[in-house]
Amino acid sequence: MTAPKFAGIIPPLCTPLHDDFTVDTASLRRHIDFQLEAGVHGVFVLGSSSEVAFLPDRQRQVVIETAVDQVAGRVPVLAGCIDMTTLRVAEHLKTAEAAGADAMVVTAPYYTRTHSAEIDLHFRLLHDGTELPIFAYDIPVAVHTKLDRQLVLALAADGVLAGVKDSSGDEAGFRFLLKGRRERGLDSFAVFTGSELLVDSALALGADGAVPGLGNVDPAGYVRIHDHFRTGDTAAARREQERLLSLFGITDVAPPARMGRGSAALGAFKAAMKMRGFIDNAVTAPPQLPLNAEELLQIKEKLAESGLL
Amino acid sequence: MTAPKFAGIIPPLCTPLHDDFTVDTASLRRHIDFQLEAGVHGVFVLGSSSEVAFLPDRQRQVVIETAVDQVAGRVPVLAGCIDMTTLRVAEHLKTAEAAGADAMVVTAPYYTRTHSAEIDLHFRLLHDGTELPIFAYDIPVAVHTKLDRQLVLALAADGVLAGVKDSSGDEAGFRFLLKGRRERGLDSFAVFTGSELLVDSALALGADGAVPGLGNVDPAGYVRIHDHFRTGDTAAARREQERLLSLFGITDVAPPARMGRGSAALGAFKAAMKMRGFIDNAVTAPPQLPLNAEELLQIKEKLAESGLL
Amino acid sequence: MTAPKFAGIIPPLCTPLHDDFTVDTASLRRHIDFQLEAGVHGVFVLGSSSEVAFLPDRQRQVVIETAVDQVAGRVPVLAGCIDMTTLRVAEHLKTAEAAGADAMVVTAPYYTRTHSAEIDLHFRLLHDGTELPIFAYDIPVAVHTKLDRQLVLALAADGVLAGVKDSSGDEAGFRFLLKGRRERGLDSFAVFTGSELLVDSALALGADGAVPGLGNVDPAGYVRIHDHFRTGDTAAARREQERLLSLFGITDVAPPARMGRGSAALGAFKAAMKMRGFIDNAVTAPPQLPLNAEELLQIKEKLAESGLL
Amino acid sequence: MTAPKFAGIIPPLCTPLHDDFTVDTASLRRHIDFQLEAGVHGVFVLGSSSEVAFLPDRQRQVVIETAVDQVAGRVPVLAGCIDMTTLRVAEHLKTAEAAGADAMVVTAPYYTRTHSAEIDLHFRLLHDGTELPIFAYDIPVAVHTKLDRQLVLALAADGVLAGVKDSSGDEAGFRFLLKGRRERGLDSFAVFTGSELLVDSALALGADGAVPGLGNVDPAGYVRIHDHFRTGDTAAARREQERLLSLFGITDVAPPARMGRGSAALGAFKAAMKMRGFIDNAVTAPPQLPLNAEELLQIKEKLAESGLL
Repeated sequence: MTAPKFAGIIPPLCTPLHDDFTVDTASLRRHIDFQLEAGVHGVFVLGSSSEVAFLPDRQRQVVIETAVDQVAGRVPVLAGCIDMTTLRVAEHLKTAEAAGADAMVVTAPYYTRTHSAEIDLHFRLLHDGTELPIFAYDIPVAVHTKLDRQLVLALAADGVLAGVKDSSGDEAGFRFLLKGRRERGLDSFAVFTGSELLVDSALALGADGAVPGLGNVDPAGYVRIHDHFRTGDTAAARREQERLLSLFGITDVAPPARMGRGSAALGAFKAAMKMRGFIDNAVTAPPQLPLNAEELLQIKEKLAESGLL
Repeated sequence: MTAPKFAGIIPPLCTPLHDDFTVDTASLRRHIDFQLEAGVHGVFVLGSSSEVAFLPDRQRQVVIETAVDQVAGRVPVLAGCIDMTTLRVAEHLKTAEAAGADAMVVTAPYYTRTHSAEIDLHFRLLHDGTELPIFAYDIPVAVHTKLDRQLVLALAADGVLAGVKDSSGDEAGFRFLLKGRRERGLDSFAVFTGSELLVDSALALGADGAVPGLGNVDPAGYVRIHDHFRTGDTAAARREQERLLSLFGITDVAPPARMGRGSAALGAFKAAMKMRGFIDNAVTAPPQLPLNAEELLQIKEKLAESGLL
Repeated sequence: MTAPKFAGIIPPLCTPLHDDFTVDTASLRRHIDFQLEAGVHGVFVLGSSSEVAFLPDRQRQVVIETAVDQVAGRVPVLAGCIDMTTLRVAEHLKTAEAAGADAMVVTAPYYTRTHSAEIDLHFRLLHDGTELPIFAYDIPVAVHTKLDRQLVLALAADGVLAGVKDSSGDEAGFRFLLKGRRERGLDSFAVFTGSELLVDSALALGADGAVPGLGNVDPAGYVRIHDHFRTGDTAAARREQERLLSLFGITDVAPPARMGRGSAALGAFKAAMKMRGFIDNAVTAPPQLPLNAEELLQIKEKLAESGLL
Repeated sequence: MTAPKFAGIIPPLCTPLHDDFTVDTASLRRHIDFQLEAGVHGVFVLGSSSEVAFLPDRQRQVVIETAVDQVAGRVPVLAGCIDMTTLRVAEHLKTAEAAGADAMVVTAPYYTRTHSAEIDLHFRLLHDGTELPIFAYDIPVAVHTKLDRQLVLALAADGVLAGVKDSSGDEAGFRFLLKGRRERGLDSFAVFTGSELLVDSALALGADGAVPGLGNVDPAGYVRIHDHFRTGDTAAARREQERLLSLFGITDVAPPARMGRGSAALGAFKAAMKMRGFIDNAVTAPPQLPLNAEELLQIKEKLAESGLL
C-alpha cells in the first residue's frame, strides 16, 4: 500500500438530519458543494462533528455513500469508523470501503480500559483487513486515552498508519510528533491538527493540514489561512484565525448549566449552517438538546459580526 | 408498565467465543446451566464482563437469543443494550425485545460529552419506545460519567427506570440511593451493586442483589452469601465474601505493564471458567491480549486454594 | 518504637476561629470537652476538617498545644502534619512532637507529581526522624494520589507506619487492606475509615475505628454506632448511621453553583457546632465563602429533625 | 498601583542545594550570573522548577534574598508564593516583599476543593494586602484547577492581577486569553507562557514572554528565540526552538517506572546545570530520587548534541 498524500483543509462535515433523524441527503449534498466551492482540500465524514456517535449504522452508511457520490472524486473523502473495539470497527471499515471512501479514521478503543500494547494490536489488525489508508484519530475527550507518540510513529514507520488527526489539545505533544516524523523520514505520513483555533500555529509547526469543525460554518476562512500560510503571509493567516476565534464564540451561547458542550457546539454549527443556507434543518440527534430562540439570535449576530450574513 | 421485581445474585455472564470470535453457543448454554444449577436468581448478558464492547451486533444478538432459549424462563434474563447514544441504543433495545429478554440495561451516553438533562432525556426516550423494564447501568469507569442520584430517583419515581446496577464504586453514594428509594417509597425499584467484592456489605445496606463478575467463576459462592444474609448469618456471609476476595486475585496475575486491566480480568475469568469445565475456549476478543502459561498456572493455583479445582 | 493501639471513634476536629482567623482556643477547649463527654476515643486535630490547609503554621501550633493541654491524656491526640513534601512535613512533625501529640498523620506528597517509590521514601525518611507513630492519610481528593495498598502494608510491616486513615472512598480497596493486614499478622497496625457515611460497614469489615467529620456535630451518634457494633446490635448501628446520613445533608444546603464543596461542608459543620453550643463563632478561613441566612435556617431544621436541637 | 511591565525570557530558576538540602547560595549566585550574561529579561525564583514544594520556609526566604541581592536590580525578580490557601500565601507575600522581590506569583488554592468564586476572593484578598504586582500562576498539573479565563481577565481589569504565567498546556485557551486582553485594552497585563516547548508559537500569538524551565540549562537559546522573533526571523526562532525540543529529551532519560516525572525533569535540569558549570551540586530535595550514572551519561550526550558541552 502506498499512502496517498492528504493535505490542506479537510473539514469534519456535520450531518444534516430530517426531523425523524434520518440523513437529509439533499442538504448534505448542498453542504458538500458549498465546502468544495470554498476550496477545501478534502472532506471528513463521520467524525465527532458529524454526530457519528449518535447515528445508527444505516444512517452512517448513507452519509458515506452520499458524500462519495457528491464529491465525485474532486477531493479525497475520509470516513470515520468510530466504534469501541476492533471487530466492531472492522465492520465499519468494510462499509466505508464498499462505499468508496478514500481513507478511514479510527480511534483507540474506548468504553473498555485499554493499554498501549492493545492499541497497537488494534490498529495492526485493522490495517491487515483493509487496502485503504488508516488515520489515527487522537481524541482523548471522547475516548479517554491519549495516543502515545512513540506508538503512533512506530505504526507510521510500519505502514500501518497513513496519518493522524490530533484532537488531543496537546500542542507540545503535537510538535514532538512532527519532529519525530521528520527525524524518521516519514514524509508520506500525514499529520493534521483537529483544533479549529490553532490552524495557523499548526501549519507553522509543519502540520500538513487541519480538520476544523468550525469549517462547517466558514470553510473559506480556513482555506484563506491555508493560502496565506502557503504564500508566507503569516500575519494575514493570524488575522484570519483570530476572526475565526471570535466566530467560535457561537459554540458558547448555550450555557453549561443548561446543556452539554457537545449539544452547544454542534447545535451552533448546524444553526449557523442553516442561517448561511448550507442546510435546511438544524436539528441534532437525541439526546442532544436544542438551542433556544435567544441563543439562535446570538448566533445570528456573531455570524453578522464575522461578515458571514 | 409494572416493573417485575428483580432480586438476588444475577451474574453478568462472560461470552464464550470460538477462535474466530463468533459466539460459542454450546459453551454459553453449558455455562448458563452451571450458573442456574448453582442457584443464581437471574442472568445478565451483554454487560461489560460479556465483552459487549467487543462483540459485533450480530454476535450480540446470538448471545441474547441463546441465553433466552437456554434459560427458558427459569430466571429473568437481563440484556445489556450498550451503545453511545439514544438512537443506537434504541436499536439494541429492539433486538433485545425481539429476542425475549426480560429487562434491558442501559448506560449514560458516552464518547460524546453529556449533561444530566441529556441523560434524563436519553432514558425517557428509550422508555417511551419499549414495553420492557430498563435498568440504569452506572459505570463511570467505562462511560466517564457518574449517574446523578437525584436523577436516578426521579426517573424511578416516573416509572422510567425499573432498577439500577451500580458499578460506580461509590459506596456512600450507593447508600444514599438506597435511602432515597426508601424515603420515596419506590419499593419496586431494584437496586443492585455491581461490585463482586462488597456483596455482603451491599445486602446489609438494603440492596436487592448483586451482579458479580466473579460469579462467572464461582456462582455458588455468591449464592451462599445471599443465603447466609437471608438467614441472618452475617459472619458466614462475610467469610464467604472474603474467600471470594482472595479468588478475585486471579484478575491481577497479568501485570499492568503488559496488558490492560480489562484483558487481565476477562482473560482470567474465562481461563478459570474453562478450568472449571464451564466453557471450552478461553479466548477473548481483540484487541485484548491473552494470558501466558505462567499466568494461567497462577490462576489454577488460586482456584485450587479457593476449593474450586 | 512500639506503636500504641488506636481504636474507636476519633473525630477530626474542626478549628474554631475568631473573626481575625486566629484560633478561638476557648471554643476549641469547649468543643473538645463536648467530644470527650460524648465518649470519643481520641481526637484528630489538623486534618482536612480542621481547615489545616487554611491555617498558618503559628495557628496550627496553637491548635495542637491547646488540644494536648485540654485533652490532658484522657484520650490520644493525633495531629495532622499536612504539607507538600518531606522537609516541610518534617518541620510540622517537630512542632507536633514538641506540643505533645501522640501520633502524626501524614499524606503522600502533593503539588509535585509523585511516584510510589518516592512516597515510600517520604514515609521512611519521616519515620527515621521521629519517635512518634505515623499514620498514613489516604486522601486522593486532596493530594490526587491514591496510596498503593501493597506499599502501605509493606511500610506497616517495616514499622514505618502505625496506621492508616483511609479517606479514599474506595471501599473494595479498604477491604483488601484489612485482608492484607490480617494475612500478614500486622495486628498493631491500625486501620481507620475516614468516611462518616460508612462507619457501621467499616467496623463490620474489621476496621479499628473511624474518623468522622460529622462527628464534630454529633459525636454521640458515632459513639453509639461503635457501641452497638461492639455489642453485636448491627441493626441499631445501621439505624444510627442512617440517621447520620440524613444529618449529613447539612453539607449540601449551599449549592455547588455558589461555592466549593469544602466551604459548604466545613461551613455547615461549624454552623451546626455553633447552634449546638460547642463553639462561639462559625467563621471559616479565606477564601472559603460563608453560608447565607437561608442556608443556616436549613441547617437548623436538619439538626432539629435529627434530634440535636 | 501601576504594574511595571514584564516581558521577555524569565526562566524559573532551579534552586541549587547542599547535601543537607540547605540552599547553596554561592551556586545560586553563579547560576543567576550565567542567566543574566545569557541575556534573560528577568528571573523567577520559587516556581515549580525551583522545588518550591520541597523547600522549607526558611530556605525559601534564603532563595529570594540571595536572588534579589545577586540580581541587584539588573532585571526584575519574580518570587513564587506557593501555598495552599489565602492566609498561608499571605505570609509568603510578606516574606517576598521584605526580601525585595519585584512581583509575586500565586496559584489557585489547592489541597482543598475550590470554586471560581473562591479563587476570585483569594486573589483579591492577597492583592489588598500588598503593594507588589501579583501574577496568577495557572498550573493545573500541580493544583488540579484550571484558572477560568474570564475570571483572570476580570481580575486583570480590576488591577488585581498584573499578569499571568500560563503553564496549563491549553494553547487554545491561551490564545483566547490574549484575544481577551486585546479586546479589553489591558495592555499592561502581562501574559507569559510557561511552556519551554512552544515559546516561538506563544510569541507569535502575542505573548509578552516565556518562563521556560529548560532555560536553566540553555538560557541563551531562549534569548535567541526571543531576539529572532523581535527581528521577524520566525524561521530562525523555530529552528532554535526545535533544537531545544531535542534538548528537552534530557527530562525523559529516567524511566517513568523508576521515578516521578518531577524527579526526572528537575534531576535532569540540575545535572545539566552542573555539567555546564552553573552549579556545584545536582542534588534534589527528598523524596525525589536521584538519576543514576547511565542516565547522567545520556544527559551529557544530549548536551553535547545540542552544542552545550
